[in-house]
Amino acid sequence: MATVLASASSSLQLPKPLKLDSGQVLDRVTLAYETYGELAADKSNVILIFHALTMDQYVASPHPITGKPGWWANSVGPGKVVDTNRFHVICANVIGSCMGSTGPASEAADGRPYGMRFPVITIRDMVRAQVALLDALGIGRLHAVVGGSMGGMQALSFAANFPERAERVLAIATTARHSAQNIAFHEVGRQAIMADPNWQGGGYYDSGKTPDKGLAVARMAAHITYLSEAGLTEKFGRRLQNRDAKSFGFDADFQVESYLRHQGLSFTDRFDANSYLYITRAMDYFDLAEEHGGRLADAFAGSSARFCVVSFDTDWLYPTSASRVIVQALNAAAAPVSFVELSAPFGHDSFLLDVPALDRVVKGFLE
Amino acid sequence: MATVLASASSSLQLPKPLKLDSGQVLDRVTLAYETYGELAADKSNVILIFHALTMDQYVASPHPITGKPGWWANSVGPGKVVDTNRFHVICANVIGSCMGSTGPASEAADGRPYGMRFPVITIRDMVRAQVALLDALGIGRLHAVVGGSMGGMQALSFAANFPERAERVLAIATTARHSAQNIAFHEVGRQAIMADPNWQGGGYYDSGKTPDKGLAVARMAAHITYLSEAGLTEKFGRRLQNRDAKSFGFDADFQVESYLRHQGLSFTDRFDANSYLYITRAMDYFDLAEEHGGRLADAFAGSSARFCVVSFDTDWLYPTSASRVIVQALNAAAAPVSFVELSAPFGHDSFLLDVPALDRVVKGFLE
Repeated sequence: MATVLASASSSLQLPKPLKLDSGQVLDRVTLAYETYGELAADKSNVILIFHALTMDQYVASPHPITGKPGWWANSVGPGKVVDTNRFHVICANVIGSCMGSTGPASEAADGRPYGMRFPVITIRDMVRAQVALLDALGIGRLHAVVGGSMGGMQALSFAANFPERAERVLAIATTARHSAQNIAFHEVGRQAIMADPNWQGGGYYDSGKTPDKGLAVARMAAHITYLSEAGLTEKFGRRLQNRDAKSFGFDADFQVESYLRHQGLSFTDRFDANSYLYITRAMDYFDLAEEHGGRLADAFAGSSARFCVVSFDTDWLYPTSASRVIVQALNAAAAPVSFVELSAPFGHDSFLLDVPALDRVVKGFLE
Repeated sequence: MATVLASASSSLQLPKPLKLDSGQVLDRVTLAYETYGELAADKSNVILIFHALTMDQYVASPHPITGKPGWWANSVGPGKVVDTNRFHVICANVIGSCMGSTGPASEAADGRPYGMRFPVITIRDMVRAQVALLDALGIGRLHAVVGGSMGGMQALSFAANFPERAERVLAIATTARHSAQNIAFHEVGRQAIMADPNWQGGGYYDSGKTPDKGLAVARMAAHITYLSEAGLTEKFGRRLQNRDAKSFGFDADFQVESYLRHQGLSFTDRFDANSYLYITRAMDYFDLAEEHGGRLADAFAGSSARFCVVSFDTDWLYPTSASRVIVQALNAAAAPVSFVELSAPFGHDSFLLDVPALDRVVKGFLE
C-alpha cells in the first residue's frame, strides 16, 4: 500500500453548456480538480469532497500560491481518516471561484474577463457542474460526498438533487439555509469590496489595481464569525503585540488586531474579490427547502443515501440548531441519519482543525 | 409639576487643560451638554447619564441633524422612569465625539482641525472631562450616574475613579473590559474607514470628501453585533425587499441587506469617521481592572455607592457573563449591588428599546 500521497491536478472543460438556476446558460465551463488515490476498476470507491467558501481543490496537496498544506491534509491521505489507499478522492474548485474553474476572472466569449457579467450562481449550480464532471469521468454512484460549511451545503444539495448518486452524505458544520445574520455578515463583506474604488464595478482585471483593501476588510469581518468568542479570548485575550504598553495610537496594539490584519492581507494574495462576491451570494441564496416546495423533508424524499450530520458546540455561524433542522427533516423523510454535536473550542473553524472526535466520526461513517 | 419636558442645550469650555491617560494634555476642552428638569437649590438631585458609542447628549430631546427623538426619550421626562419633575438630568457629549464637544473635527491651536493629531483618549478621560464639567457647574455628589454600553463603562469608571461623587451607579448592558472579540469587531470598522481613500489619513475635513463608504461599512459590521440572531430572524428572516423573487444580481434582495445598507448610509449623515476611530479605540483600551493593579475588586474598593448591574439574555456583545464579572468584583469589594439579567429579544440594543422590565429596574433603583 502507498504511504506517500499521490495526487494529480486536472482540468476538464464540460462537454455541454451549464444551465443555471438564474435561467442563464454558462458556456465553456472548466472545472479544475485534484484527485488522490487510485480509482477502482469498477469506479466504486469515489469520495467527492466539496470545499468551503475560500477553500479550493487543494484538499490534501500544497496550495500553489501559499505553499501551505492542503486544507484537510490531516484527514486525507494514505491510512488517514479518508484513506487514499482505499478511496479515490476528488475535489473540484467550485464554479465562481478563482483557482482554475470558471469564474468572474475567466475569459468570456469576447476574450475579456467576465467581471460582473458573470452570471449569479447558486450552490445547486456548483453541484450541477461537479455532477457534469463526474459524468464526463464516467463515474456514477459515489461511495460518499463530504463537505464542511459551504461544502456541507453542496453535500446536502447533491443529496437532494441527485438522490441516486451517493451512498453516503456527510455534512459538517453547515446549514440548510442562510439565516438573516449569515446574510448580514456577507453583505458587510460585499459592501466593503464594492466600496473600494479599485473594484471599479468589478472591471479591475486589466487595470493593474485590485480591491485588496476592501477584500481584506471583508475577510476580517468573516473571520471573526469563524472563531468562537472563548477561542479568541484563549488565543489572544487582551495581550499586546510586541510591546509592553499601549501605544495610544492606531497601530495594532493588540495581538487580535495584528492577527486579523494579517488574515485580511494574506487572503488578498490568493483570492479574487469578484469570486468572493459571487460565492457569498450563492451561499446567501441557499435555502434547500425553498427549492423543494418549502418543506425541507421533501428535499430528501427521494434519497437512498445514509446521512451523517456533525455540528460543533462553539460554532455560532452555523450552530447546532441549524444542524438539528437538517436532522429533523431527514427523520421526517425517513432517511437513515446519525447526528452528533462535537465539543471543540475553535468555533466554526473546528471542521478544519485537529478535532480527534471528528476524525472518529468521519472514519466510522466512511467504512 | 411640569408635564412638558423642558430641556436646555449648553456648552462649556473647561477652565483647565485636561490631563489624559496617554500623558498628553488637551487644552481648551469644550463639552456640549443637555439638561432636563430643575436643579434643586442644594444641587442634590442630579443624575448624570453617559451616552454610548454613537449616541450623544440628546438623551431626551430631538437630534438636531436627524430630527429623531432622543435616544432614551421613552425613559427620561416628566413622570417617566427618570423623572425630570424630580431630577435634574445632565448628559454631555463625550470628548472625541462630534456633537459639540472637543474631538478630532475640532480646531487645534493652529486653527485647523485636529484630525489624527487629536490625542488618543480613554473612557477615563471621557469621565474626567465630565467631572470637570460638574466641578465647573458647582455640582458635588450626584444622586446617580447611569449608562448603557459605553455609557456603562463610563459609569463604572466614574465609580472607580471618583468614588465619593455618586450615590448610585447604574450600569446596563456593559463590561469592565473589552474582549478579544469586541476588539476584533472594532478593528474591522477602523480598517474599513482607513481603507477609504477619502479618509486621507484623517485629514479630510477641508477636502469636501468624507470617508462615508468606509464609515458605512464600519457601522454595518457593528450593527450586526447590536442585534440578536433570533431578533434578526424574527425581524427579517429571509424575506425579500420589494420583490417577489431573487434578482440573481447584487442588489439588496433581502430585507436584512436593505436594512443594513440604510443603517450604514444614514449613520454617515450624523457621525464623523475620525470620532468613530477615537471612540472605538477608547472602548478597546478599556480594562478597569488593569487601571487598578489588575484586580477589578480593587477598582471599587473606595466606593461608597450602591450599584445596580443589568444585562440582557440575548446580548452577545456584552453578555451576562461580562456583567457577572462586574458583580463578583463588587461583591469582593463588599459594595452593595443588585444584579438582574433581563429577558428581551433585541440583543445588545435592548438597553435602548422598549423593555418594561428595564423601566421597573431603573425606576426602583433611582428612588
